[in-house]
Amino acid sequence: MAGSELERLVQLLARLPGLGPRSARRAVLALMKKRDQLLLPLAGAMREAAERVVTCSACGNLDTCDPCAICADPRRDPTMIVVVEDVGDLWALERSGATKARFHVLGGVLSALDGVGPDDLDIAGLLRRVREGGVEEVVLAMNATVEGQTTAHYVADRLAGLGCRVSRLAHGVPVGGELDYLDDGTLVAALRSRRSL
Amino acid sequence: MAGSELERLVQLLARLPGLGPRSARRAVLALMKKRDQLLLPLAGAMREAAERVVTCSACGNLDTCDPCAICADPRRDPTMIVVVEDVGDLWALERSGATKARFHVLGGVLSALDGVGPDDLDIAGLLRRVREGGVEEVVLAMNATVEGQTTAHYVADRLAGLGCRVSRLAHGVPVGGELDYLDDGTLVAALRSRRSL
Repeated sequence: MAGSELERLVQLLARLPGLGPRSARRAVLALMKKRDQLLLPLAGAMREAAERVVTCSACGNLDTCDPCAICADPRRDPTMIVVVEDVGDLWALERSGATKARFHVLGGVLSALDGVGPDDLDIAGLLRRVREGGVEEVVLAMNATVEGQTTAHYVADRLAGLGCRVSRLAHGVPVGGELDYLDDGTLVAALRSRRSL
Repeated sequence: MAGSELERLVQLLARLPGLGPRSARRAVLALMKKRDQLLLPLAGAMREAAERVVTCSACGNLDTCDPCAICADPRRDPTMIVVVEDVGDLWALERSGATKARFHVLGGVLSALDGVGPDDLDIAGLLRRVREGGVEEVVLAMNATVEGQTTAHYVADRLAGLGCRVSRLAHGVPVGGELDYLDDGTLVAALRSRRSL
């Protein structure tokens, strides 16, 4: 490829999740075609984000202020904390509008394989927030994976005796899901947790 | 999502080909996690590319110099010009090492649907290069699509009478391809252009 600048841009873009070398090359060509509408604004937005976005010291969310807009919002329910693995999960819950609770981002899941232990996650911060008082319920909203559920059990153990209710998300048939396409584990969970009509 | 800076970054990234809103959000989170190794270098590389990369006035390639490194390279064969639709196609041919010829980028294909006429493509530049002399063969390396082949026919017509040979890429079974998975058009072309062993 001609031009080490373009080569370098392709290599950097290819390190983003979801982009390989081929799609990175396509992206670079699209960027060069829209220099003023896309390339320069994107470079500016990246620099801006690098300078201004910080991690909320209370909940681990990303925002331009610390504490973040959610933690600082007096309309959010201070009695409930929803614990998630990553900021992306927090964004997903916020988009759904499912809760007015506050959040706590662990920053990952326990994983012996990847060498992630309890000290690598922000469990201490969660315990501190619960001990400070006012929290009546902690909802463990980890992914329904083996690691996610292992982490949820570990966090639940650590929360035991702190006087708050601990719950987890329901397992079952996703809305719009078809039984024929679901795995056995989901079907077992959905049948076991059936609700009266 | 918290933080208008992040929201804006997601929206800009989602405009790249191959990235939707979901993968753009994942990319932004990956960028924020690798601020110094990825986010800032990427912002810098984009600004650098925006400032330094230009379109070659001879062939339409992208490079930091004009004429581009390929046009300026005396070891490239000046008697053959390979005509491609886009810079991405030029890069693909360069990666393959298939030719030491020079290139000419049309900048698209004729398309009545998209309102792209002959004057929107750099056909005039190609004719000028051929008229300047020294070109013995023009290889039309457009995509094997209806638009690509229509464009190739049009360019071939315009080149008629200028004294250079005009050829196109061979059609046939791609190397590694299985007959059972190929479309009828490819099979017909491969059989018609069969070679003696």
